[in-house]
Amino acid sequence: MKTAPATDQLQSDKLFVKMAISAWQTYNDRVTKLVEKLSDEALAGEVAPGKNTGTYLFGHLIAVNDNLFPLFGFGENLYPELGKIFLDTPDKSGLKFPAIPELKKYWQNVNRKLTDHFTGMTPEDWLSKHNSVSAEDFAKEPHRNKLNVILNRTSHQSYHLGQMTLLEKR
Amino acid sequence: MKTAPATDQLQSDKLFVKMAISAWQTYNDRVTKLVEKLSDEALAGEVAPGKNTGTYLFGHLIAVNDNLFPLFGFGENLYPELGKIFLDTPDKSGLKFPAIPELKKYWQNVNRKLTDHFTGMTPEDWLSKHNSVSAEDFAKEPHRNKLNVILNRTSHQSYHLGQMTLLEKR
Repeated sequence: MKTAPATDQLQSDKLFVKMAISAWQTYNDRVTKLVEKLSDEALAGEVAPGKNTGTYLFGHLIAVNDNLFPLFGFGENLYPELGKIFLDTPDKSGLKFPAIPELKKYWQNVNRKLTDHFTGMTPEDWLSKHNSVSAEDFAKEPHRNKLNVILNRTSHQSYHLGQMTLLEKR
Repeated sequence: MKTAPATDQLQSDKLFVKMAISAWQTYNDRVTKLVEKLSDEALAGEVAPGKNTGTYLFGHLIAVNDNLFPLFGFGENLYPELGKIFLDTPDKSGLKFPAIPELKKYWQNVNRKLTDHFTGMTPEDWLSKHNSVSAEDFAKEPHRNKLNVILNRTSHQSYHLGQMTLLEKR
């Protein structure tokens, strides 16, 4: 196999990171645009009869992104109270949700602060382990790194965006 | 910035590719499991009132994956007739769909043959241009490569999987 010079390889590492972050950002922006477009009433509806509401899914996405702070060692969750409502408990279990305008502020804050952290990260940082894997396991499974979390979170955002999109024009 | 040795960098390139392909495969398998689990009747239903049917979305995912053959220079589409039905035309426009058992065979074939091609590709191959970008544009925008297409297709599969999942247990 041809071995490329180290500088080319460094360029390719940067390219991989750029592509992954850009995909994450794309779906993040699409969620933002969708919730801005939907009325609060539409967002509070079920995505299909008997299924999750848009509000629950939106809160769920905020809580999942907020969990990246401790997972990546950026600090504490900004809104730790969301975990109980939108991660540990299913929709319609009687827990009171924050009002939709509040949720929109949380979404903005979480994503702005995450993006600030992401901007300063090198490819080496991205390939380093996250806080849910032990050093021992990471030595054997180096794909359990931060960038891989972002790849999975991108698909997760996209999965629920696909559902929330069904709330449009009914 | 610390420059890692070329061998480490080559390892990291392989790792990036492994993570991206593995994410693609994960969502591919989840679509397979879902369509195996749903009855043909359930799959033919609308994912939400007035929205696309599961059959249309399934055909759409097959056609999109099938388009990777010409896009990546692997050869012709296996099922070129699907493009008109599932890409160029919206659902419920009167075009006859192939029967669901046929679609399942197409899905398997397309994915098996794609996976065979993917297995032989080096990181360098993945970072090479696809056939929808000119050499000139690619020189300026090196992120328009094959791996980036896979990242986007992973989210696209995930988006529609999220919708098709709503067909479960009604």
